[in-house]
Amino acid sequence: MLPELALVPGEPAGIGPELCIRLIQQPRTDCRLLAFADPATLQAAAAALSLPLQLLPADAHARVPGDLRLHPLPNAVPSQFGHADPRNAAAVIGALQAAGQACLDGRLDGVVTGPVHKAVINQGGIAYSGTTELLADQAGVKVVMMLANPIVRVALATTHLPLREVADAITADGLEHTLRTLHAALGREFGLADPRIAVLGLNPHAGEDGHLGREELDLIIPLLQRLRAEGMQLIGPLPADTAFLPAKLAGFDSVLAMYHDQGLPVLKYSGFEQAVNLTLGLPYPRVAVDHGTALELAGRGIADPSSLQAAATLCAQLARQRRLSA
Amino acid sequence: MLPELALVPGEPAGIGPELCIRLIQQPRTDCRLLAFADPATLQAAAAALSLPLQLLPADAHARVPGDLRLHPLPNAVPSQFGHADPRNAAAVIGALQAAGQACLDGRLDGVVTGPVHKAVINQGGIAYSGTTELLADQAGVKVVMMLANPIVRVALATTHLPLREVADAITADGLEHTLRTLHAALGREFGLADPRIAVLGLNPHAGEDGHLGREELDLIIPLLQRLRAEGMQLIGPLPADTAFLPAKLAGFDSVLAMYHDQGLPVLKYSGFEQAVNLTLGLPYPRVAVDHGTALELAGRGIADPSSLQAAATLCAQLARQRRLSA
Repeated sequence: MLPELALVPGEPAGIGPELCIRLIQQPRTDCRLLAFADPATLQAAAAALSLPLQLLPADAHARVPGDLRLHPLPNAVPSQFGHADPRNAAAVIGALQAAGQACLDGRLDGVVTGPVHKAVINQGGIAYSGTTELLADQAGVKVVMMLANPIVRVALATTHLPLREVADAITADGLEHTLRTLHAALGREFGLADPRIAVLGLNPHAGEDGHLGREELDLIIPLLQRLRAEGMQLIGPLPADTAFLPAKLAGFDSVLAMYHDQGLPVLKYSGFEQAVNLTLGLPYPRVAVDHGTALELAGRGIADPSSLQAAATLCAQLARQRRLSA
Repeated sequence: MLPELALVPGEPAGIGPELCIRLIQQPRTDCRLLAFADPATLQAAAAALSLPLQLLPADAHARVPGDLRLHPLPNAVPSQFGHADPRNAAAVIGALQAAGQACLDGRLDGVVTGPVHKAVINQGGIAYSGTTELLADQAGVKVVMMLANPIVRVALATTHLPLREVADAITADGLEHTLRTLHAALGREFGLADPRIAVLGLNPHAGEDGHLGREELDLIIPLLQRLRAEGMQLIGPLPADTAFLPAKLAGFDSVLAMYHDQGLPVLKYSGFEQAVNLTLGLPYPRVAVDHGTALELAGRGIADPSSLQAAATLCAQLARQRRLSA
């Protein structure tokens, strides 16, 4: 049986809805999609793009281009492309929560999400720091963020922190949890039995034997040695500037960066369009687009659907692999 | 008249000498090179590679492949490829100082340097943190480090600091000096009359309006506004992860990164072989290879000379442009 994935468009005034409409113009052979969204928003996106859309009940079957099974979650007020309305924040968040809960309950096999506008959700009176955090809290787990494209999979030891807080946020316990989560996900979701993980140093030149910082000597190296003794293939700590050389990347299944701006520039440079954002450590696979709501493009039919397409394809692969690994 | 450039091989036991031998196998039409080195080491490198080498006095002319004008600076002890000897540290440093002084005195127009082994120099009893710093101290100026390849020129606001010290090392005065030095060099050495400089934020997402750090609001944005009022084209502060997207890079003459691992991974990923290391702010152009001594490869004839070739070519261009700009 094909995996059943939730498809959540995200901010209704952004490009998420029209990317979903584009996504369903080709019949899928790798998964079945169930949208969690406002029906009127999807209809408006289809009309704006002059593309077919037939909304179907959740228990129906998508058969032709434009068929989309829907779990309807109406907006509070009509949405207009380009103008995000905080009054719809609850509907946006509700869709994410319903999709996550369906996976936790075993009714669905994964979640594919479009972009959410953080500031608008908070303006709507809902504390929200990101969909990653929302789904982690709902599942009661600590997660790891990974950004992936066809060139490289970058996992992050810390995510959205001021730079001056990064060094103190790297702890032996936290880094161990991150590495175990990453290692397990590469096995269970990516089907890599003995994954090779490159671990970057925190400091330039990976600390250069303590001359440029001691966190490698005091914390990272001892942890890697301990985990290697369990059999994990961990390379590093490596200097960040040369770890991404193409010839080196070819030998790694994933790169663990210590912080956001150390790991993501190469990821985005080497293939932004097809980049996706994964959440590792949830009881189900979750893959998101790696771009924002792009309010200024919404409803014009010019937004690039590559990232959402890559997200759906990868989420379906991960869900299938999870079944094989179970 | 062609620019006259110093060519300093760096560590005699590393790949620097053989890269110099490869470099001089093609006659140059853009500059004249004067080596500052140990004659025996150059002869050994030529012999190891079975390539011609004729060492000439400084006042001679190079005419055929293998001709090299030399300012001889003998090593203290014979050098053996692959085995760096701290007793030769003084000769290595002396060659750099002589080359720099020749430029300060107006006898030469620029310096091209190979790789130096930092630890071996320090083992030899000479305090040395890098050739960049050595030449800056000699000239009595503050400099800016830039790494460049055919895709992007990345300048650094801070260089070799532990990550936890970076945020405090970014000051308004220091950043202003860096931007003025970079702007002036892009004009005087690169011939860009009105260069477009992208400035990265210190924090992820360039601080996201203060949610992820305040340095952008408190320090970087006010400084950029002040310098823009003088007419500088400064873009940013930009989020580091998306600033390097190829379509964006095409619109920048240079990117100023706030620290080492924010700016250099894309530089190295996008073209390591042809990457070079420039020192901006000296009274003369200085371009170095962007790789290490590679002791394990030395004398085997397999080291890639692309970076040294790119360094010599660029240094000649910069020296010519300086004359035009003078």
